[in-house]
Amino acid sequence: MANSRSGETVTERIVRVLETFDADRTVQTTAEIGRRARLPSSTAHRVVAGLVECGLLERDEEQRVRLGMRLWELALRGSHALRLRQAALPFMERVQARVREHTQLAVLENGETLFVERLSHPHAGANITRIAGRLPLHASSSGLVLLAHGPEELRERVLAGPLEAVSPKTVTDPALLRRVLAGVRRDGVVVAPGTVEAVSTGVAVPVREGRGRVVAALSVVLPRSTPTGPAAEALRSAAAGISAALGARRP
Amino acid sequence: MANSRSGETVTERIVRVLETFDADRTVQTTAEIGRRARLPSSTAHRVVAGLVECGLLERDEEQRVRLGMRLWELALRGSHALRLRQAALPFMERVQARVREHTQLAVLENGETLFVERLSHPHAGANITRIAGRLPLHASSSGLVLLAHGPEELRERVLAGPLEAVSPKTVTDPALLRRVLAGVRRDGVVVAPGTVEAVSTGVAVPVREGRGRVVAALSVVLPRSTPTGPAAEALRSAAAGISAALGARRP
Repeated sequence: MANSRSGETVTERIVRVLETFDADRTVQTTAEIGRRARLPSSTAHRVVAGLVECGLLERDEEQRVRLGMRLWELALRGSHALRLRQAALPFMERVQARVREHTQLAVLENGETLFVERLSHPHAGANITRIAGRLPLHASSSGLVLLAHGPEELRERVLAGPLEAVSPKTVTDPALLRRVLAGVRRDGVVVAPGTVEAVSTGVAVPVREGRGRVVAALSVVLPRSTPTGPAAEALRSAAAGISAALGARRP
Repeated sequence: MANSRSGETVTERIVRVLETFDADRTVQTTAEIGRRARLPSSTAHRVVAGLVECGLLERDEEQRVRLGMRLWELALRGSHALRLRQAALPFMERVQARVREHTQLAVLENGETLFVERLSHPHAGANITRIAGRLPLHASSSGLVLLAHGPEELRERVLAGPLEAVSPKTVTDPALLRRVLAGVRRDGVVVAPGTVEAVSTGVAVPVREGRGRVVAALSVVLPRSTPTGPAAEALRSAAAGISAALGARRP
């Protein structure tokens, strides 16, 4: 891979440019991209022009830049995330029809919880997660499921800290977190009141693929006052359905 | 952008590698990728290694390669496609609850119909479209909506042909296609029996953003024998809802 004088590859610079886009910054000038990616102006212009040329970025009428549909297409059409999400969606809809709150699907990505799907009821309560958004593993109910069933080495690294408090109720004590994770593996469900937002309780269950490996966490976010039993039951039933769907040859 | 001896940029080679993945090839060896991308073996290994390094590709236990969750995340979190799709999903669910067949959302991408969302009823009939899949503009009901409301220059280019027949009922006569497109603009709905698959009828309506520009097509795929009136009505109502949702400041 061609290296710049800084030793950084073109691929790394492309990733840095793409990273400057998020839900609050879907359109930017090349100068803004360069500043946020900490790239020299000439480099930013060259990388952006190359990405526009290939359709991975698009320019609008005012020459501002946004992520291209081509990037979206390349990222999705051959992706495991899409397969998982397509298998899960019908079951997530059933959960949502019963629970009428936020229903979410999350995976483990580079040591964090990455949300790959979210259905929201129009009258559902507070919830800070977004599709393609992240949270630390120890904070949310989904993350606790993924951490409990994730690689031993990752679990020990997270337990070694630091354990950031996302809310005053986030579990930040390593010994307590270790007991919580053992409980998750034993009970097959996490109930996490207030660990992300004080007003909400997360309820999450593991989603297993054919051979039993946990590949995702399925969760709902309820107001703190709502009983969690019916949601846990709906999630368990949905997770079983998703596992069966993933076991079939085609999603 | 660093150029290879062939004059191709690193960005172009990255796109060629990503293009080798699709719904039927989610996992490949580097040798397979190189062959499909028509890249020399050493180049393929270098490009793949760079993409794995940045998380855009991932290796499994057998050293085979698949699209990385990081690519999925970068492509989605700042994307217009996600915003459109999140605005549309609740309304698509209502359509599907009423029509109980395939409900789809498509956009115009580089002169083709790109499907960005699809909901399928368990007992729905035949439908060849896939999320992140494409069809020629003149073939499907969604494409006819996008073509009718797309740039004049694109419409003339498509009308100049060649007009490929996806099924025996695809409109391939330029004069007839021109009349069909005028009808789409006049009626605000397309009913396309058998133009993609002989057994199915596509029904599609335009989705407009705040200022009235058509940004997507919303469609259902029905068995040929099903009356199209109720579906057209459900689609019109949903398209109005999506337009209102897109007009709001945040999806």
